[in-house]
Amino acid sequence: MPRNMKRMSRTAGLPPGTVVHIGSQALEQSRITLMDFDESHLEERQIDKIEDAFPFKESPTVTWINVDGIYDTALIEKLGTHFGIHPLVLEDIANTSQRPKMEDLGEYIFIVFKMLRLDPKTGDVISEQVSLILGRDFVISFQETEGDVFDPIRDRIRDAKTRIRKMKADYLAYTLIDAVTDNYFVILERFGERMEEMEANLVTHPAPDTLQEIHSLKREMIRLRKSIWPLREALSQLGRSESDLIMESTLIYVRDVYDHTIQVIDTLESLRDMVSGMLDTYLSSMSNRMNEVMKVLTIIATIFIPLTFIAGVYGMNFVFMPELKWHGAYFVVLGLMAVVALVMVLYFKRKRWL
Amino acid sequence: MPRNMKRMSRTAGLPPGTVVHIGSQALEQSRITLMDFDESHLEERQIDKIEDAFPFKESPTVTWINVDGIYDTALIEKLGTHFGIHPLVLEDIANTSQRPKMEDLGEYIFIVFKMLRLDPKTGDVISEQVSLILGRDFVISFQETEGDVFDPIRDRIRDAKTRIRKMKADYLAYTLIDAVTDNYFVILERFGERMEEMEANLVTHPAPDTLQEIHSLKREMIRLRKSIWPLREALSQLGRSESDLIMESTLIYVRDVYDHTIQVIDTLESLRDMVSGMLDTYLSSMSNRMNEVMKVLTIIATIFIPLTFIAGVYGMNFVFMPELKWHGAYFVVLGLMAVVALVMVLYFKRKRWL
Amino acid sequence: MPRNMKRMSRTAGLPPGTVVHIGSQALEQSRITLMDFDESHLEERQIDKIEDAFPFKESPTVTWINVDGIYDTALIEKLGTHFGIHPLVLEDIANTSQRPKMEDLGEYIFIVFKMLRLDPKTGDVISEQVSLILGRDFVISFQETEGDVFDPIRDRIRDAKTRIRKMKADYLAYTLIDAVTDNYFVILERFGERMEEMEANLVTHPAPDTLQEIHSLKREMIRLRKSIWPLREALSQLGRSESDLIMESTLIYVRDVYDHTIQVIDTLESLRDMVSGMLDTYLSSMSNRMNEVMKVLTIIATIFIPLTFIAGVYGMNFVFMPELKWHGAYFVVLGLMAVVALVMVLYFKRKRWL
Amino acid sequence: MPRNMKRMSRTAGLPPGTVVHIGSQALEQSRITLMDFDESHLEERQIDKIEDAFPFKESPTVTWINVDGIYDTALIEKLGTHFGIHPLVLEDIANTSQRPKMEDLGEYIFIVFKMLRLDPKTGDVISEQVSLILGRDFVISFQETEGDVFDPIRDRIRDAKTRIRKMKADYLAYTLIDAVTDNYFVILERFGERMEEMEANLVTHPAPDTLQEIHSLKREMIRLRKSIWPLREALSQLGRSESDLIMESTLIYVRDVYDHTIQVIDTLESLRDMVSGMLDTYLSSMSNRMNEVMKVLTIIATIFIPLTFIAGVYGMNFVFMPELKWHGAYFVVLGLMAVVALVMVLYFKRKRWL
Amino acid sequence: MPRNMKRMSRTAGLPPGTVVHIGSQALEQSRITLMDFDESHLEERQIDKIEDAFPFKESPTVTWINVDGIYDTALIEKLGTHFGIHPLVLEDIANTSQRPKMEDLGEYIFIVFKMLRLDPKTGDVISEQVSLILGRDFVISFQETEGDVFDPIRDRIRDAKTRIRKMKADYLAYTLIDAVTDNYFVILERFGERMEEMEANLVTHPAPDTLQEIHSLKREMIRLRKSIWPLREALSQLGRSESDLIMESTLIYVRDVYDHTIQVIDTLESLRDMVSGMLDTYLSSMSNRMNEVMKVLTIIATIFIPLTFIAGVYGMNFVFMPELKWHGAYFVVLGLMAVVALVMVLYFKRKRWL
Repeated sequence: MPRNMKRMSRTAGLPPGTVVHIGSQALEQSRITLMDFDESHLEERQIDKIEDAFPFKESPTVTWINVDGIYDTALIEKLGTHFGIHPLVLEDIANTSQRPKMEDLGEYIFIVFKMLRLDPKTGDVISEQVSLILGRDFVISFQETEGDVFDPIRDRIRDAKTRIRKMKADYLAYTLIDAVTDNYFVILERFGERMEEMEANLVTHPAPDTLQEIHSLKREMIRLRKSIWPLREALSQLGRSESDLIMESTLIYVRDVYDHTIQVIDTLESLRDMVSGMLDTYLSSMSNRMNEVMKVLTIIATIFIPLTFIAGVYGMNFVFMPELKWHGAYFVVLGLMAVVALVMVLYFKRKRWL
Repeated sequence: MPRNMKRMSRTAGLPPGTVVHIGSQALEQSRITLMDFDESHLEERQIDKIEDAFPFKESPTVTWINVDGIYDTALIEKLGTHFGIHPLVLEDIANTSQRPKMEDLGEYIFIVFKMLRLDPKTGDVISEQVSLILGRDFVISFQETEGDVFDPIRDRIRDAKTRIRKMKADYLAYTLIDAVTDNYFVILERFGERMEEMEANLVTHPAPDTLQEIHSLKREMIRLRKSIWPLREALSQLGRSESDLIMESTLIYVRDVYDHTIQVIDTLESLRDMVSGMLDTYLSSMSNRMNEVMKVLTIIATIFIPLTFIAGVYGMNFVFMPELKWHGAYFVVLGLMAVVALVMVLYFKRKRWL
Repeated sequence: MPRNMKRMSRTAGLPPGTVVHIGSQALEQSRITLMDFDESHLEERQIDKIEDAFPFKESPTVTWINVDGIYDTALIEKLGTHFGIHPLVLEDIANTSQRPKMEDLGEYIFIVFKMLRLDPKTGDVISEQVSLILGRDFVISFQETEGDVFDPIRDRIRDAKTRIRKMKADYLAYTLIDAVTDNYFVILERFGERMEEMEANLVTHPAPDTLQEIHSLKREMIRLRKSIWPLREALSQLGRSESDLIMESTLIYVRDVYDHTIQVIDTLESLRDMVSGMLDTYLSSMSNRMNEVMKVLTIIATIFIPLTFIAGVYGMNFVFMPELKWHGAYFVVLGLMAVVALVMVLYFKRKRWL
Repeated sequence: MPRNMKRMSRTAGLPPGTVVHIGSQALEQSRITLMDFDESHLEERQIDKIEDAFPFKESPTVTWINVDGIYDTALIEKLGTHFGIHPLVLEDIANTSQRPKMEDLGEYIFIVFKMLRLDPKTGDVISEQVSLILGRDFVISFQETEGDVFDPIRDRIRDAKTRIRKMKADYLAYTLIDAVTDNYFVILERFGERMEEMEANLVTHPAPDTLQEIHSLKREMIRLRKSIWPLREALSQLGRSESDLIMESTLIYVRDVYDHTIQVIDTLESLRDMVSGMLDTYLSSMSNRMNEVMKVLTIIATIFIPLTFIAGVYGMNFVFMPELKWHGAYFVVLGLMAVVALVMVLYFKRKRWL
Repeated sequence: MPRNMKRMSRTAGLPPGTVVHIGSQALEQSRITLMDFDESHLEERQIDKIEDAFPFKESPTVTWINVDGIYDTALIEKLGTHFGIHPLVLEDIANTSQRPKMEDLGEYIFIVFKMLRLDPKTGDVISEQVSLILGRDFVISFQETEGDVFDPIRDRIRDAKTRIRKMKADYLAYTLIDAVTDNYFVILERFGERMEEMEANLVTHPAPDTLQEIHSLKREMIRLRKSIWPLREALSQLGRSESDLIMESTLIYVRDVYDHTIQVIDTLESLRDMVSGMLDTYLSSMSNRMNEVMKVLTIIATIFIPLTFIAGVYGMNFVFMPELKWHGAYFVVLGLMAVVALVMVLYFKRKRWL
């Protein structure tokens, strides 16, 4: 979190609508790819000069411009100006600390959300901000860096027989959001596995640093929740939108992806319950151990302290201690000690401490 | 929960509307039964080829097609296509990790919920997803596996004098939901019994693994709540529905089953309160035991430590210790010890520790 | 709670609208009394055959039929059929595990709630379900057993000069609800007294079973809340009702009784706060005691353990221990011990442990 | 709280609208004062016979009738009847356990709230119920006893140049509420001071009864909140009221006093946070002390127990213990003891327990 | 908080609309600056006599009057009277304990909020109340003292090419709020840094006063939240405002700053989660330490207490103790002791206490 704060505080004092990149610079140069298609035709290419993308704005075919890397704010501004995007929206695109949201600006719809995916090498969760501009017959998507979860969609576009080729830009935008949402399940699955692992360890080897791990897990899940919860809201708005950019037939898909986010949140809540349960289990197992330790201490001490006292008494050096000279007194005392110990043990048994 | 996540993550990357079975494959082959009836007529039969069911769609009689087993997605798609069901709905039917919900799609209403029943052999709770398609004069129900709580309904349909024979498909759909809801009470009763058993044990033999059991109970109840709570919402929507598929006279029944779900949730909340209470009782009884243990330790130690010290003093080997040679000194010291012990005991009595 | 579950699960599998008695059978035979009155006339009698009550339905005078005992479901059905009550409502009347609610069914209004009163002998709280049918010029009330809080109302009806004789059936129904609500205060007063008693004990004699009592109190209050909270909702609906069964001039009374339920809930919340406070007080007083015990142990042990060690050193049997032979060494060692003890005590004083 | 319950239960069984005094009888005889004024004229007098106040009802000047003491229910009823007040409202006026509320009854508006002020002698908080009837050109206020926070308002009325002389009855009612609300700040200030005092003590002398005090403070603040929170609601209703008794120009004042109640609640919440913080501080300082005590015990015991054991070994009376006869063995053993003690101390240092 | 209470209680008894300065007197004399501009023209000057500012009210250019210091209530009243500000609003301006809010008064909009900034010297957070009056073509801002976060805005106004010179007064008001909101991030960044520092210390040197610090941090964050949360509400109202003082084109900016406040609150919530986590970490690390201490005590005591008892037995002075005379008995006893110790250690190892 402090990460984002640092970045946001950089803009204090700048006029609104100033497009400033806020975030870690993941990519030096932006990489732009373009797919232009309708049912019968497909053009796919890499764009080097942003101006090459401009003519596609007016074409009746669906155009998907994907920008990897948002460090080059000049490029974003050029693109924005041509496609008629409001400066404040461009500011939001360049700022990677956005809360997921949806804004209907009449001529286009702006949606921003977090794409989560697993790093194929380390297995860590990578969070990346994706901004979508859904206009009439075009979708522009901005990502922080290369690598995304959209490859299956690209494959489907390349296949002329798929539904995506028959539909409009709104369906493409939906498909992108759907892919991101589906991937949330992959992430949650991984969390679930990690938790199961920890839970097993919890019972066998509870260690103080387990607590740290549980807390870090909890924190990660709070962060996840912060990424996903507002998306649900944004999709709900999208589903109720009266914008003519979204066709009637697409609305059922939007409601479906909205249902998916609810399922994600439900699963997340279940995981949170699990984490809370783990915390309780950890704490109570720690306290149980402590109690056992204390019980052993008490039992040992309570049995031996009186015995030691008896031994102490007969260790006194008084000249006139008649018992000392009695024959067999030693064994009587030993017997007494055994009786005292036995009584103690029986007492503890009755109290169910043993 | 992780169970569902694993299954959901399988669809990541697939186009929306792909009917993929998600869930444990409970049944190799789907089993389809059909009941077609009106006030005067009843036809009941097993369907081997799904096409045999198609003619019933157009008949003015009420048709109930029940599909046990949703692994055969081809069959679901065929059925769906003939009855005009949207691919996304079919996807939902095949995916057993749905949240209970109700969707009005104009030509038909889609309702999905969890059917809970006790395994007649083991007594465990079996959760199965049931999807209902309520169309004009037909109801299609999909279940994960054989065995359900609908047998009393089948008997009632076979009896020509029952109300169900006089009513339309909406009443049949209501009856199915009602049967499922009524069974929730059976499940809750079982939970209640299990809890009462545990509660009794809690007082007599609190054991560390009791805690595990309480937590598992709590978790099961959270899961139950997740199954039932959204159903309430779905039924509330159904009750306010303006669909012409639901007749005015059926609405009072829908509100009644809605009331039942509220009662189920109320009972569930009471059980949750009981579980919380049990947790508190367990923790405080554990801590009370601990306190008692500590008190005994303190009393024994505090009485004997000073006595042992006195014995130690007279066990010292100094050559010049005048008391040692006094006649009767031994008994004086023993008396002193008794006095010290007595003072201690009185002190503890006054402090109410004994 | 488990009580209710057991009863509800009995109906699983029965068709909806089957009037089944759910509850403990408090009364073998139903007892029916009838009061029929207007400003100038009053007829009061006991009904033996239910058919005797039927003619009163059509009379323009206000008719109050009170049924004690709902075990005889045949009677309820007969009454229901004649007065045109829906089978589902009759099912609800016979089932004593209803949540308080209000339903406007056009021709009549159905209200169900819990009547709480103190058993005049044992002083226990008796909870009984009361169902009201408010129709045009008649009120039918169903109670589980004999004995209720309505006697002052009967007296007022017998007095020709009271407002109740001048008003319609809606005012009678309001009066019944008002009597029940007023009695809630009596119950709460009793709770309050019990709590004050317990609170006093809490400070003087905190005992482990006090905790059990506090928890049971808490549980009872949760149950109370469950009885009263939904009534508030039902009354709110009644107050906003547009039914022509409720006259404009009665609405202010309904709002007044609604205000009373809010006050009851407020008082209940205060009592709950008190219980929570008691729990805190109990726990912290237990922990304070424990701390004191531990402190005493520590102080005694910490003072005597070093002294005992010194005694032990001079109890060693080494042949060459020069101090042993020094004249006065014994007293020097005693002095040393005194100094050590003093230092310890001063240390504890400074630390404010003594 | 139990106080109110006792009083409320007194009305159980009485017909609604019976004006029964509920509350402690603070004043034997009601004292009535009247101020009648418009811009140019002012009449102020004490009323002995309530009938003397009746003519003012019809006068076009603003009339303020203030009744101190509500024990004389006959007087309240007489006043109510003449001014056309509904019996249920009169019942509410006589019952001092009202929740603050506002009711628009068409011909007049009824507002009831709690007036809090500091007893000028003891400094305790005095809570008194004030009921206002705002009619066309008159305001009737009922208080439980003499003494109020309205003296500055009386002074302002006596001054012909003030705004209050130019405005209507609604402004007068607002002014009364405003005076009460302003006084809440005085009460909160006192609470704040008391808390600061306690907080200082908390750090220097935490004592078990501090806990009691904190809890009592918490309870008082909950009670305060209960008095103020519903007032906020009532004022919000007043601010949105469409009654023609409240003039457009007064609405901004009502909204202002509504803002003040929000500020009061805000401050109250801050105080509650402070109390919670104090509780945490107390508990953790108690537990810190305990931990320190335990640490000292452990360190002393752990150092001396092994040493005492060594001394014990050489205190044994075996005939053949070669070390005993070695010259210097005593000093070797003393040295050994020193080494053991040192190792222990170093161990504790490393563990940071010392 | 108590600070504000004290101040507020000063106004109790004063007529509403009395402009009383509530707050610490930060500035003896108010300092007024004025900027008057449109696209082509800019006049900037310091105002000594408030009357000099009056002519600008009517000018069609945008006028920004900034008042530093609100102690001089006469000046505020003069300004207010000329610009037609309601006395209650003037009262609010002079009272620095306002809750952030927005009020649409038709002729002008009143917005009040807290400006937070870091003291450039000490690094402390300075909170200052800013009140804005947005009228037709003028903005009046009141601050408690000199120094603010508006200098970048002043620079932008001085630059003729900026957007602010082309827009109306509503845009100026927005810009002021935006500057304040942006600065919240700077404050949060500082909090974040402080927390990270503390968190590092928490693991390495947990000390009792860490708790105090965490609590104070928590308290500061609650206060921050109280400053920011109502602002969100106020901006939401502003964004939905139908006032003709706010132009359509400005609304998107208002929504943008509203989004920023949501982000601030989100970040604040994250920080609060962090603080809670720190508290948990602290408490559990304290309790872990305690447990370790107790374990060491138990192990040492449990091993040596039985050994000391054995030594005690053979320290007894009975005349007839046959073992004492056995040759080698001493070494047998030493061996016995070693075995006992070993058994203990193995037992602890098996129990995983070592």
